Amino acid sequence: MSGLQVREATAEDLVAVVGLQREDVIREEHEDDVPLSAYRAAFDEITADAHQQLLVGELDGEVVATAQVTWVRRLTYVGGEMGIVESVRVRSDLRGRGLGETLMRHVLDLARARGAVRVELTTNAQRDAAGRFYERLGFRPSHVGMKYYLGGRR
Amino acid sequence: MSGLQVREATAEDLVAVVGLQREDVIREEHEDDVPLSAYRAAFDEITADAHQQLLVGELDGEVVATAQVTWVRRLTYVGGEMGIVESVRVRSDLRGRGLGETLMRHVLDLARARGAVRVELTTNAQRDAAGRFYERLGFRPSHVGMKYYLGGRR
Repeated sequence: MSGLQVREATAEDLVAVVGLQREDVIREEHEDDVPLSAYRAAFDEITADAHQQLLVGELDGEVVATAQVTWVRRLTYVGGEMGIVESVRVRSDLRGRGLGETLMRHVLDLARARGAVRVELTTNAQRDAAGRFYERLGFRPSHVGMKYYLGGRR
Repeated sequence: MSGLQVREATAEDLVAVVGLQREDVIREEHEDDVPLSAYRAAFDEITADAHQQLLVGELDGEVVATAQVTWVRRLTYVGGEMGIVESVRVRSDLRGRGLGETLMRHVLDLARARGAVRVELTTNAQRDAAGRFYERLGFRPSHVGMKYYLGGRR
């Protein structure tokens, strides 16, 4: 029991959530000079989207973890629903206490409650510890995650 | 120029699309005994979903290729939109003619037109040829694709 309380993000969580994202050391994007207000429209779109759940984990009333889950209906598995997890973050000074496990088990519970067939994510191949963490939870590294960058807002 | 004409699927394409899915030899699911009508609700949900595009590719008026694209807003890249591609299929007797390349270039063009920052997919690590195909198109195999199966409808 890590003590982490997981709930859906509200408008007030933007600063905490973006702060956790920016803490990530091997993210490819470098946007520390971007004002937080630039994320507001995306944040509001995600939290209003019935297919998405932006989760935050609180410890003693403070947001210290986050994950974004998108629920997608696919034709495979006779029209099964899948959960795609992205941007899993735990505050760096709190790692190793099981907070990430509590957060991910919450995601798996949400998936079971919906009757989803699969939860999936990709982890940067450089992140050895992350890969082992997901394997301990029962994820299987069966696929290669391929990315094509278009430029766009990057 | 492969001659493939790519468009969004309509209700009439269900049999062709599910047929292409079932042809796949290393898919994990085995549902050949499932009636096509079982896919109807999922098919209709996907084609009605503003965040999804179920594509079909026609050659001489016949559906011979398909791909499912889901557009997801994320907080990374300052609220960038990403295209997640799934269930890319080309009829087995027509491979090696560039049809898959035409289909995937169409997906990349859709992504550029939307201002998306990234297109991503996972390919089974057993599919060597698929991995090389996506790399030729400019995808980078930077991530490990991890899957957790819940049972559900499987």
